[in-house]
Amino acid sequence: MSRFRLTIAYDGTAYFGWQAQPGKPTVQEAIEAALARLTGEKPRVHASGRTDTGVHAAGQVAHVELARGGDAAHPRRKPFAAKELAHALNALLPADIRILKCSRAAEDFHARFSAKEKEYRYRIWNAPVLPPDLRFTFAHVPKPELDLAAMRRAAKMLAGTHDFAAFSANPHRETNGTVRTLKKLAIVRDGEKIEIRAVGDGFLYKMVRSLAGHLIRVGKGAVAAEETRAILESKTRTARVETAPAKGLTLWRVLYPRHP
Amino acid sequence: MSRFRLTIAYDGTAYFGWQAQPGKPTVQEAIEAALARLTGEKPRVHASGRTDTGVHAAGQVAHVELARGGDAAHPRRKPFAAKELAHALNALLPADIRILKCSRAAEDFHARFSAKEKEYRYRIWNAPVLPPDLRFTFAHVPKPELDLAAMRRAAKMLAGTHDFAAFSANPHRETNGTVRTLKKLAIVRDGEKIEIRAVGDGFLYKMVRSLAGHLIRVGKGAVAAEETRAILESKTRTARVETAPAKGLTLWRVLYPRHP
Repeated sequence: MSRFRLTIAYDGTAYFGWQAQPGKPTVQEAIEAALARLTGEKPRVHASGRTDTGVHAAGQVAHVELARGGDAAHPRRKPFAAKELAHALNALLPADIRILKCSRAAEDFHARFSAKEKEYRYRIWNAPVLPPDLRFTFAHVPKPELDLAAMRRAAKMLAGTHDFAAFSANPHRETNGTVRTLKKLAIVRDGEKIEIRAVGDGFLYKMVRSLAGHLIRVGKGAVAAEETRAILESKTRTARVETAPAKGLTLWRVLYPRHP
Repeated sequence: MSRFRLTIAYDGTAYFGWQAQPGKPTVQEAIEAALARLTGEKPRVHASGRTDTGVHAAGQVAHVELARGGDAAHPRRKPFAAKELAHALNALLPADIRILKCSRAAEDFHARFSAKEKEYRYRIWNAPVLPPDLRFTFAHVPKPELDLAAMRRAAKMLAGTHDFAAFSANPHRETNGTVRTLKKLAIVRDGEKIEIRAVGDGFLYKMVRSLAGHLIRVGKGAVAAEETRAILESKTRTARVETAPAKGLTLWRVLYPRHP
């Protein structure tokens, strides 16, 4: 058996998220189908975590175990080297899913359980007209000009270790409790682009989109930044926190300090 | 009659270029249809020039003359102000076509005949894997790493006033001769992105894609930069000059010094 680690980028627009579901196109299903066609095996691909319908990835990480990992069309050739596997997969996959890297992984490497940190980026275009080439990957806030100072004050209250139940779309179904550590929550502006960068040890269901939705409302002046603490401490999800649209969200990278 | 000037961005992926053609989706047809639906008139939209199938624009310019320019749904309201027109058009147009600006234009403003200078940008992703979000707007040169110094030597021979027949896809059909002035031909690198920026007083049929195709071959080492002069002076289009793929090309901006 050989275990491979894949770093994957995708435009999530055409997919019902990462996780395979009967009858729906998903990223996991596309990669498993390409691997099956290539090797003749029926491998299961395990990601660092699911991404929801319409969410993108610049650095999703997954692992897969192959019994032989050979070319089904040429059974006498030796098994694929990691680089060849990436190349062959990209030739079979649609252009909206790309294997950025493929390497041999240790037997104890698990894309989900070995992950220690993740970074998500939520991207906003804050100007009247959304440029056509950004229409799938940026949320659009045509006006007003967002108040970054207020957003940063709110972000400061959210960073750190907290019970984030108020920022989960379904706090009662969180199986590992609702306390998480947000190591960083930064707001970076570049002209009309505003990026919310969230780094944490783990995220609740739709947590980044809930944080982004809240920060956008703060930036619009619809909620005072100072209310953030009360919302967080309420530990209750209410309509005060909006979920920002999926298309603005990208899983940026996953960190494995023990498996560099 | 009121004349309006429109600055337009589009992702050309889904279109058979700018110019209206029966039974095919084009950018011109989409904008004329939106204007007709909005105003009840049947206006003709004139662009600075055609763009080919699959070519994009960040700053195409067009003009349109409206008899009244009022809202067909509310005939008693006064005609649209320029800003309202842009807003209403964007509400009707698909997200891959955006009106960036709309202003009143002088009666003697003509998007094509008043244009004095155009800039095109040809964008290349020069790394093994093309990121999914760039798949529609960048040409992909996976390898080798392009030799920018050689490309710049070739570009230097192409800049200036020349007979560019060797870089037209159809030199015999050029109605205004084949001499043009290339005011600038720069090659700009930003990590894996390479941009060829061409500024000129006018361009022949598929000229920028031919220049890009040649420069890419020079960058790959398939042609010596020094051959560029002989190709140019041959004034003959041959297979030595390749036409680079449409999707890498964007009409960046059009300049009207007398109509700022």
